[in-house]
Amino acid sequence: MPHAVLLISCSDQKGITASVTNFVYTYGGNIVHADQHIDDQSNTFFMRLEWALDGFSLAKEDIAEAFDSIAKKFDMKWELYFNDEHPDVALFVSKHLHCLYDVLFRYKTGQLPCEIPLIISNHPDAKPVADEFGIAFHEFSITSDNKEEQEQKERAVLQEAGVDLIVLARYHQIFSPGFVDEYQNKIINIHHSFLPAFAGSNPYAQAYQKGVKIIGATSHFVTAQLDEGPIIEQDTVRISHRDALEDLVRKGQDLEKVVLSRALRLALERRILCYGNKTVVFE
Amino acid sequence: MPHAVLLISCSDQKGITASVTNFVYTYGGNIVHADQHIDDQSNTFFMRLEWALDGFSLAKEDIAEAFDSIAKKFDMKWELYFNDEHPDVALFVSKHLHCLYDVLFRYKTGQLPCEIPLIISNHPDAKPVADEFGIAFHEFSITSDNKEEQEQKERAVLQEAGVDLIVLARYHQIFSPGFVDEYQNKIINIHHSFLPAFAGSNPYAQAYQKGVKIIGATSHFVTAQLDEGPIIEQDTVRISHRDALEDLVRKGQDLEKVVLSRALRLALERRILCYGNKTVVFE
Amino acid sequence: MPHAVLLISCSDQKGITASVTNFVYTYGGNIVHADQHIDDQSNTFFMRLEWALDGFSLAKEDIAEAFDSIAKKFDMKWELYFNDEHPDVALFVSKHLHCLYDVLFRYKTGQLPCEIPLIISNHPDAKPVADEFGIAFHEFSITSDNKEEQEQKERAVLQEAGVDLIVLARYHQIFSPGFVDEYQNKIINIHHSFLPAFAGSNPYAQAYQKGVKIIGATSHFVTAQLDEGPIIEQDTVRISHRDALEDLVRKGQDLEKVVLSRALRLALERRILCYGNKTVVFE
Amino acid sequence: MPHAVLLISCSDQKGITASVTNFVYTYGGNIVHADQHIDDQSNTFFMRLEWALDGFSLAKEDIAEAFDSIAKKFDMKWELYFNDEHPDVALFVSKHLHCLYDVLFRYKTGQLPCEIPLIISNHPDAKPVADEFGIAFHEFSITSDNKEEQEQKERAVLQEAGVDLIVLARYHQIFSPGFVDEYQNKIINIHHSFLPAFAGSNPYAQAYQKGVKIIGATSHFVTAQLDEGPIIEQDTVRISHRDALEDLVRKGQDLEKVVLSRALRLALERRILCYGNKTVVFE
Repeated sequence: MPHAVLLISCSDQKGITASVTNFVYTYGGNIVHADQHIDDQSNTFFMRLEWALDGFSLAKEDIAEAFDSIAKKFDMKWELYFNDEHPDVALFVSKHLHCLYDVLFRYKTGQLPCEIPLIISNHPDAKPVADEFGIAFHEFSITSDNKEEQEQKERAVLQEAGVDLIVLARYHQIFSPGFVDEYQNKIINIHHSFLPAFAGSNPYAQAYQKGVKIIGATSHFVTAQLDEGPIIEQDTVRISHRDALEDLVRKGQDLEKVVLSRALRLALERRILCYGNKTVVFE
Repeated sequence: MPHAVLLISCSDQKGITASVTNFVYTYGGNIVHADQHIDDQSNTFFMRLEWALDGFSLAKEDIAEAFDSIAKKFDMKWELYFNDEHPDVALFVSKHLHCLYDVLFRYKTGQLPCEIPLIISNHPDAKPVADEFGIAFHEFSITSDNKEEQEQKERAVLQEAGVDLIVLARYHQIFSPGFVDEYQNKIINIHHSFLPAFAGSNPYAQAYQKGVKIIGATSHFVTAQLDEGPIIEQDTVRISHRDALEDLVRKGQDLEKVVLSRALRLALERRILCYGNKTVVFE
Repeated sequence: MPHAVLLISCSDQKGITASVTNFVYTYGGNIVHADQHIDDQSNTFFMRLEWALDGFSLAKEDIAEAFDSIAKKFDMKWELYFNDEHPDVALFVSKHLHCLYDVLFRYKTGQLPCEIPLIISNHPDAKPVADEFGIAFHEFSITSDNKEEQEQKERAVLQEAGVDLIVLARYHQIFSPGFVDEYQNKIINIHHSFLPAFAGSNPYAQAYQKGVKIIGATSHFVTAQLDEGPIIEQDTVRISHRDALEDLVRKGQDLEKVVLSRALRLALERRILCYGNKTVVFE
Repeated sequence: MPHAVLLISCSDQKGITASVTNFVYTYGGNIVHADQHIDDQSNTFFMRLEWALDGFSLAKEDIAEAFDSIAKKFDMKWELYFNDEHPDVALFVSKHLHCLYDVLFRYKTGQLPCEIPLIISNHPDAKPVADEFGIAFHEFSITSDNKEEQEQKERAVLQEAGVDLIVLARYHQIFSPGFVDEYQNKIINIHHSFLPAFAGSNPYAQAYQKGVKIIGATSHFVTAQLDEGPIIEQDTVRISHRDALEDLVRKGQDLEKVVLSRALRLALERRILCYGNKTVVFE
């Protein structure tokens, strides 16, 4: 069933919810999900509204214009999506393929409402997996010398494919600021630690060295600051002194897969709003 | 800050959210929380709406009457509460005092928005704790012969104190159907297992015998069917073959305390709606 | 590095640990892991001893005979394994392929110390996956009429391949008692609930109907009683009223994969001893 | 039943386990728990051995001398304890009393194998609680000027009471290095974050600001580096954007209590060995 999804943020004022829900009601829409949140510190109002288009008297292409006057009245930032228009997602990966495999299996079995037109890597390792799932594979090896140039090629490929969302399924290169700017809040990374603990490289080795009793994984949007972007989802698992570094890696990889796939689903279902360096996640 | 909380359930129809939020807006209220849910199987709409009374042009005592026409239009079941009017809660306990102690410490330190006018027990063990916290203690020992009679006395005590909610903090007596009927969805129990597994007596011994690798605790409303009422909250903890029965009890008691206190808070903050034998919990 | 693993159970008596560790020491072995447990209720002693064969003066094939006198003295049940001799594992699957895929990916990437010579199914659905991973696929469709006959064929295939361990990766057929007897404590099942809650068919639908706030998955050895065998591993995940039945399935499948793979690893690393209807798991 | 507990660490060599368990066997002891671990990185062997003294032919006071030759042979660091000799524990607390209350309730109800002769605080707030539980209360207010002097008084009180273990149940003063040295690996702290994330002051505010989706609590031994000592136990709980800072505090306090009490129990049962900045915890 086709649904519309409206994501709204603005300063909190009286009458927002009434105005927005009246809008849907006026055109005969039936609300199926409505979530709102007010951040007290910044006095910001957030809303996610999902309604069935069946019986809605406005055509999809006319909704935005009709809604515009309400949006202007409350000075809203807003986005409108339709659940039958699937985002195009590009996967980036380096040499660890477990997250890639996991996303692709979910995709192949119809669990992810998106298209995956292409995979990009700085190594050839993922090529056979891409082939197996019938997805275009682009290798752009990155050195300190060719980074700018290779990123230009990557961006060209992404633009040509009309990519809406980038998923870093254990991609171990840092994008230049220009790249990150172009895809603000549209690049989802999985970091293999419970951030902000153990940012940077080799988080499992850091955790092992530190002697923590629990490890984690964190999915977040990529910003110019490494491993510092808005956190979407995290999870943890218990370890003990009996776990060698390789056990941390094994247990952690199971977390990575689940955490990344949850974050991806939340993004595809348009359940995430960013503010400052934080997220509102309407599950 | 005084808030009003409205809990609504009715058949799902177009315009409910718009009508209800318009109502609040019309009288100048500022919505601080709005949650809704639609149960697809039964086509039931649930809503919890919380708004600030500061600036709301209706007096508290006039709100219900003003809302009544909307409620009638949609054939709603609804309840109206005010967060500055604290429910009166009676605690029932038998011989295990950890949950009682935990609730009382939270109460004493101002963490629970309620009054606790009295404690009832079928044993004298909790008397010193009641004294320590300065709360009236009533002992009604129960035998198969005197149950009806003793329950009559309990109900008299509860009515006199104007008790709104009963918390069974490990109370090991089964109420008669008449008692349960009088306090429908107003008696919260903590059962020391992950229901529906290990209902009835000695759940830790049952779990130990079965060899499960995880144990749990469940807080639920009490119905005429033992340990079968709508579940409010559950949690689990990992165990292993190294844990003797007494370790299960110890680990489980930590769960019981947390699960019961969460359920109690949810009830006091008016976040729970029951339907059929299930709950909607607007956290 | 080649290691020997000894699994022991017997009545608890003085001197067992000393005798067994002396045995290893006498022949120059270096113990790398030693775990023991005493079940107080049955006064049973359990031990798992792992030592490095490098520098051990007994040849692999002579160890059992040399150990026999100690075993006899304490009337032990015991098993001897070598970590460089990988068990042969057969996978059974019906129509849900997520667990199969998960096990095969771990196998393919060298994470599981076993061989997987064959996959058996009562449906053709898994055939392409078997092909993709280059593993022999045998389809034996089961009806109420042909069950005995088909099981005979399955057992022939298993025996010919020298299968040591059977993994039911969501296989929805019940084996006849004869089959189960032949593979006692050698058939690992994943059940998609937190057993003993929701045994039998459609556990997610049962959980949804019941309104639990947490769902689980359970891996256990198969016995003649459906979903009643010794539990190896369990895990749980939180759900809410917002989760439709299909969300329970999705969240639960992530649990199933992890729980089954943990149980399989524990079995392959010879960390599980069964007693009565329970397990000792030396993690 | 009286048990002896031996904690051992030394360089890993052949024959340690055999020698130690033979020692117990020679004198007629029955081992009830035996755990060992080898840290591969440092080639260190750790062991915890617990045996029943019933039937053991050495008197308690003669065990150490008899064991000494084995200890010397392997150059062991070792400690010998008896489970019927309870450690004396001092509690330190500042103004947040939930952990104090929790420990005292467990103590009062016989769940902790220790004596608690005294409570020390830099504030008067805990005095009524100490009185309620009948435990001596010492207030030593700390300023930047009087710290050394007050610590001298605290140490005198601790020594006079023969305190073996110090528990910082939310004590918000940093000890001077001399104090920490005197009680090396004998001061257990609860830090209200998932260390190493959010060390230092106001960890809940830090977590709230960061927008993490999970918060934690950590119990660790105190060293000269603030919040950097060996971690004993951690646990985590899920939060969301709906949780205000006060909700983080509330949820976190439930973690703090459980994590601290687990760590304390592990210490009292002599289950913890420290090495470098890490712990081996034989649960």
